[in-house]
Amino acid sequence: MPAHKPLTIRVHLPVALARQLGARRKQTGQTLSAIVVQALERLLGDEDKTVFQTSTVDALMEGASAGDMTMGELKTHGDFGLGTFDGLDGEMIELDGKVFQVRADGHAHPVEDSARTPFATVSFFKADESAHLSTRSNQAEMLAAVAKMLPSALRIEGRFEYVKTRAVAKQEKSVGLEAAAREEPIFEFHDVEGTIVGFFTPDYLRGVNVPGYHLHFITADRASGGHMLDCRTTDVTIKIHHTPEFELGTPGTEEFLKADLSHDHTAAIQKIER
Amino acid sequence: MPAHKPLTIRVHLPVALARQLGARRKQTGQTLSAIVVQALERLLGDEDKTVFQTSTVDALMEGASAGDMTMGELKTHGDFGLGTFDGLDGEMIELDGKVFQVRADGHAHPVEDSARTPFATVSFFKADESAHLSTRSNQAEMLAAVAKMLPSALRIEGRFEYVKTRAVAKQEKSVGLEAAAREEPIFEFHDVEGTIVGFFTPDYLRGVNVPGYHLHFITADRASGGHMLDCRTTDVTIKIHHTPEFELGTPGTEEFLKADLSHDHTAAIQKIER
Repeated sequence: MPAHKPLTIRVHLPVALARQLGARRKQTGQTLSAIVVQALERLLGDEDKTVFQTSTVDALMEGASAGDMTMGELKTHGDFGLGTFDGLDGEMIELDGKVFQVRADGHAHPVEDSARTPFATVSFFKADESAHLSTRSNQAEMLAAVAKMLPSALRIEGRFEYVKTRAVAKQEKSVGLEAAAREEPIFEFHDVEGTIVGFFTPDYLRGVNVPGYHLHFITADRASGGHMLDCRTTDVTIKIHHTPEFELGTPGTEEFLKADLSHDHTAAIQKIER
Repeated sequence: MPAHKPLTIRVHLPVALARQLGARRKQTGQTLSAIVVQALERLLGDEDKTVFQTSTVDALMEGASAGDMTMGELKTHGDFGLGTFDGLDGEMIELDGKVFQVRADGHAHPVEDSARTPFATVSFFKADESAHLSTRSNQAEMLAAVAKMLPSALRIEGRFEYVKTRAVAKQEKSVGLEAAAREEPIFEFHDVEGTIVGFFTPDYLRGVNVPGYHLHFITADRASGGHMLDCRTTDVTIKIHHTPEFELGTPGTEEFLKADLSHDHTAAIQKIER
């Protein structure tokens, strides 16, 4: 089997792009072929190993909750993820390329591509490893099984004996996440089928996302869910996706640009997210 | 002027990539030309607004100093940047696509593409704003002029009355940055021409890079430099590049994967970097 496959491609390049291509060639001394290979590797290869996030949890804590990125744009960065909506209007869950919103009444409904988010984390989920957990487990035991697989993104699906979620309610302008979470409604589910969408954030990204596990839940009928606070499993499958790259986009909103992001909110975040 | 420029490119595709390309074509029904244009747009369009970093300052503090990414690979993420080398062997400065190493003797020399780094921050520098600073200024005054332009990456070039740098010496395995910095030699320059390569890291990335300004200096003759500790300007030009996206790659080294990254090193980092 040859290591390389020579291929002749006739490309119709937009003029602006042709100029950028020429500049890159001059700048780096790469051949056209090398640049095209690099571009294709980044397009086709990198999306499997990257978690994308817009904005930071610190900015949310400071009240930068105005929606910026649309769902349509977010979907180009991933088909799987979690976050919130303009004005902290509920919990977002993206699953198999479809985005759902769990409002403060606990009900989930599909969301238009034009809806905007101030904060979301997404990836193109691909199971690198999976495990079946058929023994009844509480949340700590379930996450111990996850931790063995060094997760970046995780999808846990099946039957749960119990699930406890919350959903923040839409806030007046610039209310921080801590104040919003104080009055959030709590929901409990018994003997339910559903999916957990989650990301593990290492401690060195503590200002960027919730350190440790950030989990959202949606029922199998996609009718309800929320930010997961607790659970007991009955019989679930754990799927793990390893993503060695992290890409952070920052909103162009005035709120974000003016937010005082010098505070360390780690303790307050741990308190409200658990 | 035509909107598109037809171009025939002979590409040598790695076999795995050719397979991915075929799968994408089938999946989306795009032509090869359309996929290549999309890939080039992402590669050449996004790089103007992205800072790329490999590894984190927290991992360096914990002694994960084994080189991972080669200079050749790093150059595909940026032509401008700073960092260190395998075993903390000196200070790295990349300028106009050329990488220089300032060893513990203060001398700078060019580096091969095969050299490896455990930690580096790079971008494709493009001046979005610039300012001329012709009044003699100390470092704080110079950085106050920079701060007015909300920087992400910065390049400051011209004549300096005084520059003070340091360069860490190559360490035995797994020595943390704090211990390495304790014995670092200090260099002073008087009436010197040169360039500062720098990045501003917001506080919410405190575990990822040095919060605030991280500045390296190299003389105009590219013969010496280091990690900048202090300066007084004579006549310099400040160029600012705004980069709303941040991309973090994590090394696959055993040291990185096993490092205990749960500590908050902010105070220690501030002490050794200033």
